[in-house]
Amino acid sequence: MLYIHIIIETMLKLNIPKTIEWVNGRVRLINQLKLPYELEYIETKNYKRIAKAIREMEIRGAPAIGVAAAYGLALAAKEIRTKSLSIALRHLRKAAEFISKTRPTAINLFWAINRILSTAEKAENVDELKSIVIDEAIRIGREDEECNLRIGEIGSKLIKDGYTIMTICNAGSLATSYYGTATAPIYYAHSLGKKINVIVLETRPYFQGARLTAFELNLTGIPVKIITDNMMGIILEKMDINLIIVGADRVTRDGYVVNKIGTYPLALLAKEHNVPFYVAAPLSTIDLESSINDVKIEKRSEEEVLYIFGRRIAPKNVGAIYYAFDITPPKLVDGIITEKGIIERPIEKNLRSIING
Amino acid sequence: MLYIHIIIETMLKLNIPKTIEWVNGRVRLINQLKLPYELEYIETKNYKRIAKAIREMEIRGAPAIGVAAAYGLALAAKEIRTKSLSIALRHLRKAAEFISKTRPTAINLFWAINRILSTAEKAENVDELKSIVIDEAIRIGREDEECNLRIGEIGSKLIKDGYTIMTICNAGSLATSYYGTATAPIYYAHSLGKKINVIVLETRPYFQGARLTAFELNLTGIPVKIITDNMMGIILEKMDINLIIVGADRVTRDGYVVNKIGTYPLALLAKEHNVPFYVAAPLSTIDLESSINDVKIEKRSEEEVLYIFGRRIAPKNVGAIYYAFDITPPKLVDGIITEKGIIERPIEKNLRSIING
Repeated sequence: MLYIHIIIETMLKLNIPKTIEWVNGRVRLINQLKLPYELEYIETKNYKRIAKAIREMEIRGAPAIGVAAAYGLALAAKEIRTKSLSIALRHLRKAAEFISKTRPTAINLFWAINRILSTAEKAENVDELKSIVIDEAIRIGREDEECNLRIGEIGSKLIKDGYTIMTICNAGSLATSYYGTATAPIYYAHSLGKKINVIVLETRPYFQGARLTAFELNLTGIPVKIITDNMMGIILEKMDINLIIVGADRVTRDGYVVNKIGTYPLALLAKEHNVPFYVAAPLSTIDLESSINDVKIEKRSEEEVLYIFGRRIAPKNVGAIYYAFDITPPKLVDGIITEKGIIERPIEKNLRSIING
Repeated sequence: MLYIHIIIETMLKLNIPKTIEWVNGRVRLINQLKLPYELEYIETKNYKRIAKAIREMEIRGAPAIGVAAAYGLALAAKEIRTKSLSIALRHLRKAAEFISKTRPTAINLFWAINRILSTAEKAENVDELKSIVIDEAIRIGREDEECNLRIGEIGSKLIKDGYTIMTICNAGSLATSYYGTATAPIYYAHSLGKKINVIVLETRPYFQGARLTAFELNLTGIPVKIITDNMMGIILEKMDINLIIVGADRVTRDGYVVNKIGTYPLALLAKEHNVPFYVAAPLSTIDLESSINDVKIEKRSEEEVLYIFGRRIAPKNVGAIYYAFDITPPKLVDGIITEKGIIERPIEKNLRSIING
């Protein structure tokens, strides 16, 4: 298993740039706002620069944000000059608070920060604190990567040579430490020599499908075509689509999938056309605390819908509605690909057993 | 009936500008490329300028294109200076050929041109030719308007006070001589004092929903909000949508509705959420010659998907697919609102009887 992981990873490393990395005491991350026009990196020793990158969406995607927060705290630890453990811890907590204020809704952000702080509290002196915090941050990044690689390996079994696969938004390498969630099975299958075509919905309002998913698939040499979101029906009608894989922002205990707007219509169409519809998500995305009734779907500013490249698409005094996510009921989901295996139907029942088992 | 028509028309005229009109021997039309930023009119005595307007999409929408072609020929007739009927007819046919080369797929264009030429052939001298061609062109515009008004009157019975209605693209007044098809029932109900809210899908790639439908609804004082196309699912889930009305580019004899991409996913979601889904279309849109298997769905240039306001939304070497229409099966359609009444289920069977009866 380890051997295969190394081979696959090496192959994929040839093509996809790392979203975020710890390199010689610095953090290096792709500025995703510049994609697909430029592949520009941000390199910094300053945790406040990391906070800015999260706040301004130079890095995005819940798992990637978690990793960025962890690396930010590693930078904060590294710059400590005091010999006093309590002053050092105070500095780290201050940095944690600063970073946590960037994006209030990303669960992974708080999860990563808490994990780093818990680790730091075990240190017996400042040197130890610095080294264990840096190690833990690297471990968080590494675990995300390994988890996605495992999702890739498991999910790749659903993909046959010659498949055409649809996806939405960017549940790709750029949304994670590496490999992505929805894209991991595609990359894994591709690295095993399977020929795959991908069709990606452009994903309004931010075009993450067109800008980011197309960018990373194209770099790996996987043929990809973009469609507008409203084209999903005719594409399923006219083309031979074999599989749909999407990511998830949250899966509730009753099996509902909260993901980027467009996921639910796509799932409903998939059912109508008998195309298998899978969600790829690490177990950390599954929220056994909540049923769908507990989930508040984020509404965002209408400006984000009304302006493209700074130009308004509608009359001045006409408003818009912007729900950022939609809800796909479990009856439309054929399976959830996790790092521990595929949760098959009935999703609701099998969710519990895979997490507990 | 006539009395009501006059009242309604007067009320609507207060708010919506005429798409295209014959005014004192000139044609005056809205330059739709400038909407919603400016309400700019093109006024011309030159039929070649009309052809340019059709070609460059300053006017669009199948019924509106038909009317524009008719008015173009009226201008061509008006400029005739010869006393020879055969030279006059030759001039008119030359103009017809010129105008017919603007947009090869618009059925109404050829229909209107043929109707004008048939009329012209009945003239016994040049003066008569000029007057009957101009009259016939005005009649074509007027008939389209009356047909839509009747669709509005009939369709308005589906609309109750307080309704929230969804629509897609622009099957509005701007796509026709006046009133629109999908919008006609909304305008009619509004003029009767019913309170209506409209949610319109922005409609990629050209944003006709955001640019045009929002523009005309807003002018009439009907509250309208824009959503991205991929938001259709969560809107039907979260909001109380009472009715969906869309236009049609073609309805086949087996009851399939060919319309703007996004119509089919919207219809499927409507069924899932028990929201009535209606198509508004004049009988001229119903094509009893064709079954859905005879219909070729137009594929257009990928550039139209890949560029917005001149900026590319995807990496350089990534392509796109652009189907311009999708296909809604009759099982998802609750009725087709025509100028002769509503074709109810089973659509396929009732199509024939309403057309023949």
